[in-house]
Amino acid sequence: MNSMMFDHSRKFDIVCSGRIAVDFNPVDLNQPLEDCTTFKKYLGGSPANIAVGMARFGKKVGFIGKVSKDQMGTFVTKFFEKEGIDTTQVCQAGQGEFIGLTYTEILSPTESSILMNRNFAADLSLTTDDVSEDYIKQAKIFLISGTALAASPSREAMLLGLRYAKKNNVKVAFVLDYRGYTWKSKEEVSLYYSFIAENSDILIGSRSEFDLMEATLFNDKNDKKSAQFWLDKGNQIVVITHGKDGSTAYTQNGESFSIKPFPVKSLKGFGGGDGYTSAFLYGLTEGWDIIDCLEFGSASAAMLIASHACSQDMPDTTAVKAFIKKEKEEYGEMIARV
Amino acid sequence: MNSMMFDHSRKFDIVCSGRIAVDFNPVDLNQPLEDCTTFKKYLGGSPANIAVGMARFGKKVGFIGKVSKDQMGTFVTKFFEKEGIDTTQVCQAGQGEFIGLTYTEILSPTESSILMNRNFAADLSLTTDDVSEDYIKQAKIFLISGTALAASPSREAMLLGLRYAKKNNVKVAFVLDYRGYTWKSKEEVSLYYSFIAENSDILIGSRSEFDLMEATLFNDKNDKKSAQFWLDKGNQIVVITHGKDGSTAYTQNGESFSIKPFPVKSLKGFGGGDGYTSAFLYGLTEGWDIIDCLEFGSASAAMLIASHACSQDMPDTTAVKAFIKKEKEEYGEMIARV
Amino acid sequence: MNSMMFDHSRKFDIVCSGRIAVDFNPVDLNQPLEDCTTFKKYLGGSPANIAVGMARFGKKVGFIGKVSKDQMGTFVTKFFEKEGIDTTQVCQAGQGEFIGLTYTEILSPTESSILMNRNFAADLSLTTDDVSEDYIKQAKIFLISGTALAASPSREAMLLGLRYAKKNNVKVAFVLDYRGYTWKSKEEVSLYYSFIAENSDILIGSRSEFDLMEATLFNDKNDKKSAQFWLDKGNQIVVITHGKDGSTAYTQNGESFSIKPFPVKSLKGFGGGDGYTSAFLYGLTEGWDIIDCLEFGSASAAMLIASHACSQDMPDTTAVKAFIKKEKEEYGEMIARV
Amino acid sequence: MNSMMFDHSRKFDIVCSGRIAVDFNPVDLNQPLEDCTTFKKYLGGSPANIAVGMARFGKKVGFIGKVSKDQMGTFVTKFFEKEGIDTTQVCQAGQGEFIGLTYTEILSPTESSILMNRNFAADLSLTTDDVSEDYIKQAKIFLISGTALAASPSREAMLLGLRYAKKNNVKVAFVLDYRGYTWKSKEEVSLYYSFIAENSDILIGSRSEFDLMEATLFNDKNDKKSAQFWLDKGNQIVVITHGKDGSTAYTQNGESFSIKPFPVKSLKGFGGGDGYTSAFLYGLTEGWDIIDCLEFGSASAAMLIASHACSQDMPDTTAVKAFIKKEKEEYGEMIARV
Repeated sequence: MNSMMFDHSRKFDIVCSGRIAVDFNPVDLNQPLEDCTTFKKYLGGSPANIAVGMARFGKKVGFIGKVSKDQMGTFVTKFFEKEGIDTTQVCQAGQGEFIGLTYTEILSPTESSILMNRNFAADLSLTTDDVSEDYIKQAKIFLISGTALAASPSREAMLLGLRYAKKNNVKVAFVLDYRGYTWKSKEEVSLYYSFIAENSDILIGSRSEFDLMEATLFNDKNDKKSAQFWLDKGNQIVVITHGKDGSTAYTQNGESFSIKPFPVKSLKGFGGGDGYTSAFLYGLTEGWDIIDCLEFGSASAAMLIASHACSQDMPDTTAVKAFIKKEKEEYGEMIARV
Repeated sequence: MNSMMFDHSRKFDIVCSGRIAVDFNPVDLNQPLEDCTTFKKYLGGSPANIAVGMARFGKKVGFIGKVSKDQMGTFVTKFFEKEGIDTTQVCQAGQGEFIGLTYTEILSPTESSILMNRNFAADLSLTTDDVSEDYIKQAKIFLISGTALAASPSREAMLLGLRYAKKNNVKVAFVLDYRGYTWKSKEEVSLYYSFIAENSDILIGSRSEFDLMEATLFNDKNDKKSAQFWLDKGNQIVVITHGKDGSTAYTQNGESFSIKPFPVKSLKGFGGGDGYTSAFLYGLTEGWDIIDCLEFGSASAAMLIASHACSQDMPDTTAVKAFIKKEKEEYGEMIARV
Repeated sequence: MNSMMFDHSRKFDIVCSGRIAVDFNPVDLNQPLEDCTTFKKYLGGSPANIAVGMARFGKKVGFIGKVSKDQMGTFVTKFFEKEGIDTTQVCQAGQGEFIGLTYTEILSPTESSILMNRNFAADLSLTTDDVSEDYIKQAKIFLISGTALAASPSREAMLLGLRYAKKNNVKVAFVLDYRGYTWKSKEEVSLYYSFIAENSDILIGSRSEFDLMEATLFNDKNDKKSAQFWLDKGNQIVVITHGKDGSTAYTQNGESFSIKPFPVKSLKGFGGGDGYTSAFLYGLTEGWDIIDCLEFGSASAAMLIASHACSQDMPDTTAVKAFIKKEKEEYGEMIARV
Repeated sequence: MNSMMFDHSRKFDIVCSGRIAVDFNPVDLNQPLEDCTTFKKYLGGSPANIAVGMARFGKKVGFIGKVSKDQMGTFVTKFFEKEGIDTTQVCQAGQGEFIGLTYTEILSPTESSILMNRNFAADLSLTTDDVSEDYIKQAKIFLISGTALAASPSREAMLLGLRYAKKNNVKVAFVLDYRGYTWKSKEEVSLYYSFIAENSDILIGSRSEFDLMEATLFNDKNDKKSAQFWLDKGNQIVVITHGKDGSTAYTQNGESFSIKPFPVKSLKGFGGGDGYTSAFLYGLTEGWDIIDCLEFGSASAAMLIASHACSQDMPDTTAVKAFIKKEKEEYGEMIARV
């Protein structure tokens, strides 16, 4: 059991918001991107991946976002619909914006990078007019992804979504998801990130993302100080991740829980995060103990970095449970637990 | 005596920030602007006028702002210097921005309007790089004017200024000063205004400006509800103005104080607000009772709407006191007090 | 008699196009602009001044341009109407553009400069949709001013106007009128200027403007070479001005005619050019000898640099003739002729 | 033999300019783009494809263009280098521009469409500073592609390139290549297209592209009228294409030559044009009779619409000759000739 209390009368377990993108992942592995000749096309974007993950776990999911008015927009919308995600609030950009594009470069199982084309991106053209209070108030959780704060008018759409969530007792999950595109300065990142985090209930990010967020707030940063600061501001759970060194969740009652990665052979060095987040949030909404949420998250992450896609390869509950069972049988009960 | 506690070791009584403009006020009175042939040029812009007002009252004043790199920028900077205002943080725009221009139309003593040219305005090009924590922390009060939130990057510069003020126990005065230029939506106004007001100590605006700020927060707006809401958020004084119907200051201890305008013959229907604010803040920093601050503010406002300029005609302490004395002798002690 | 043949069945003697601005000229003379306190407001902009000049000489004048949707736009439109200029094609900008503003600095009778605010200027927002072939074909002369080429979409509106003029045997007068605002590079100036000049019939500019226009065309520039180049391209008259050293008109038949300034006491060092051009074009449309056109132009220029305004002080035919008569009586018949 | 005279002392047979793009062509054929899952990445963009085609025929080729400063830019530059194309004038965009992207949709062998992402495209950021007169004057032919005129500053870079070509007796080939992206109005297309075409030597486009170009020039358009108009302006060869109905070349001496497509089974409905143009220009530079140039062009086009890529599948001389021989053996000598 965890301490989060959700309103079970709500229509949606989660309403995610922000970036829906298209990923082009090379089939030719372990080569510089410039030399790759063949690509698979997938739905992408951190909050979109999380939405798919939650839907695969059987949760009721809605999404507030903007996609391009073309075949790429149709592709991602149809993909959402196939997954059972509500797309009534996924609107189309009307000024020639293009859907955000991500080209992944997989140099080796441990060296990956990402090339994004976010010029005049459809997701960043979301406006305050596209955000409905009636929709948000039907959610247990409203998820904000940091990238949606990177430019106006999407930035203000997110601030309005936050306001509607707070007014209607919707829990706010803030996933830092920092991408260095379209931001004008580091100070700007810190200001907007910290503004959301001062008002969120669940806060998830990497150590380096917390550093960015806290740049205008204090020096001598470390996990304990960060966790305490954001818990003091009202968050109920603060999760700080450290890549292959694992992650720790801090809670209001002063407890903390740590998890390590499962020892899988990775195909690519990214994509685990969205699996982790969706599985962790799934556990939370199921009322699990925090440590079980973390283990479920770590397992989903492990499964995804061994897969080619992010969204498309999101596992369902049965698959994650089977994976954990298999790993424990092979490596011992405490394989991921610290 | 009032309840505001200022740190008297600080170098500046107030550091204002935001818009410095140039006003062109017609000499030909009571005519449509299109028919006016001759104009006087004055320094303008609400926070700039307040800075001049405070300086004339003998206060130590600094300013954070951006002006055009031309004779107009030189004019306002020299004007500030002549008034004894510190201009070390008044920088010059480098991308061809022009100083904000205001053309006033005085159709009659009670009908005035304002035509602004704020296209690519120098003041809105202030960036986070132009805001110094070392400077702000030398102030007793940091004043933010709502117009500076109307567009990026000035918007983020103000958010950073607010952060630095809070970190260094500088009191924040937020003057709503709404101008409908460059804002993208009403929701945007409400979001950014309320974000500053949740963090300010002194909040001053008209009833219609409070309505704008509260648009995404609650319905059934009225002064008592507004005052209580913002006092609950931590403001120590909330002043809501109603033009010729007077204004009221609400304080943390549940008291309220009202003032009426002095019965002067106005030349123009604007410009009183900045006189009011500077005189009210002057009284506060002097430790006066709130009602005396209000009376001083109302007197300064009355003197300014009978004058041609805003900045240039700001009165000094002696003049305001003489004005009040004369008015009271003529109309009675309670002439402005409710 | 001159060699230009005009179609006298046309409704308009001239249709000017491009910039309509508002000038603020200081009343306080011989001071830095920053120290000037009082300004007179006038209609300005080179092609607008020329339109007024032609109208004062009794010519039928039309104008294609865009002004701001505010009192400044109303001012200039009403001014045109009062002068008898057709304003059916003077439209209003709808996206918040402001009319171009010019602040003149008169340091001494010989030292003047100009500060312009052309950020998001209304005149540069003229589009191809605002240009009517039916209107242009009613003109004897279509006048293009170089400043209108400084940015899109005004640039393309001018190219379309040129096309319509050529299709309908309307003579094209190209007044170089270079202003260093909004142009992206010197090459750009040369390319667009030379494109218009290759298609014009009457070409008027200063030596330095010809240098700019010819920058991508040839080296070793001089008046004779310039004149021959542009006459070879089809121009019938090429006028190159040299400020106080006078100006020369070159014609298709190999002749050239020179004129000097009249020896007046100037008030300001600018504004003569538009008087010169309008008076010269007036003479041309009247069928005068080129040297008489030049003398009339030089006289009008002399009268204007001794006046405070450009547009408002444009002389009528009687006044110019009286001025010439007086000058000749005082200084001799050949006072301006070379 | 044809009438074009080239200066054989020049270093480059052709210098192409403008768009270099990346094509993503689906491997899953005959499906809506939204349903395609796998894509091949190719160098694309009409002038880039023509450059590759000319290089494969053994010609010396240079290119003036701008690519993104990332792996996509590296990919196309390396591809050019591998083909022996000079890339000293292929520069990198420095403001976050992305290379133009093309997604092809192949619904059936006869139904294809193209989805482009040209937001803030690298190729359109080419400036006048990127265009070298010294480089252009080393070419026999300077090729301009219409898409490079679609926006500033690339537009002005092309106008400058044209000027340098004319100054140095470089033949100008203008390939209309109209794409409806970034153009502001149809009039704009007509104005800039016709300005280049008035100065070109070889003019190649489809009937609908000629219609666009001539929109502001005359009505009642047809091939003969178009050809005569542009030949009168100085073009030596005008080629007007009609897709599967073939194409016709018109020459200065009043002759015309027509060709039909070869009867191949197409894989996709596009990509033939660039093969056609490169092969036709190849024939011209070899001094072939016009009809032989056309046949060579038609053969190359036929080979390309049966291939998956544009650039990568460009044939060499031997292959085209073999294709023609085979076709003639199968269908008769006059299979493509009219």
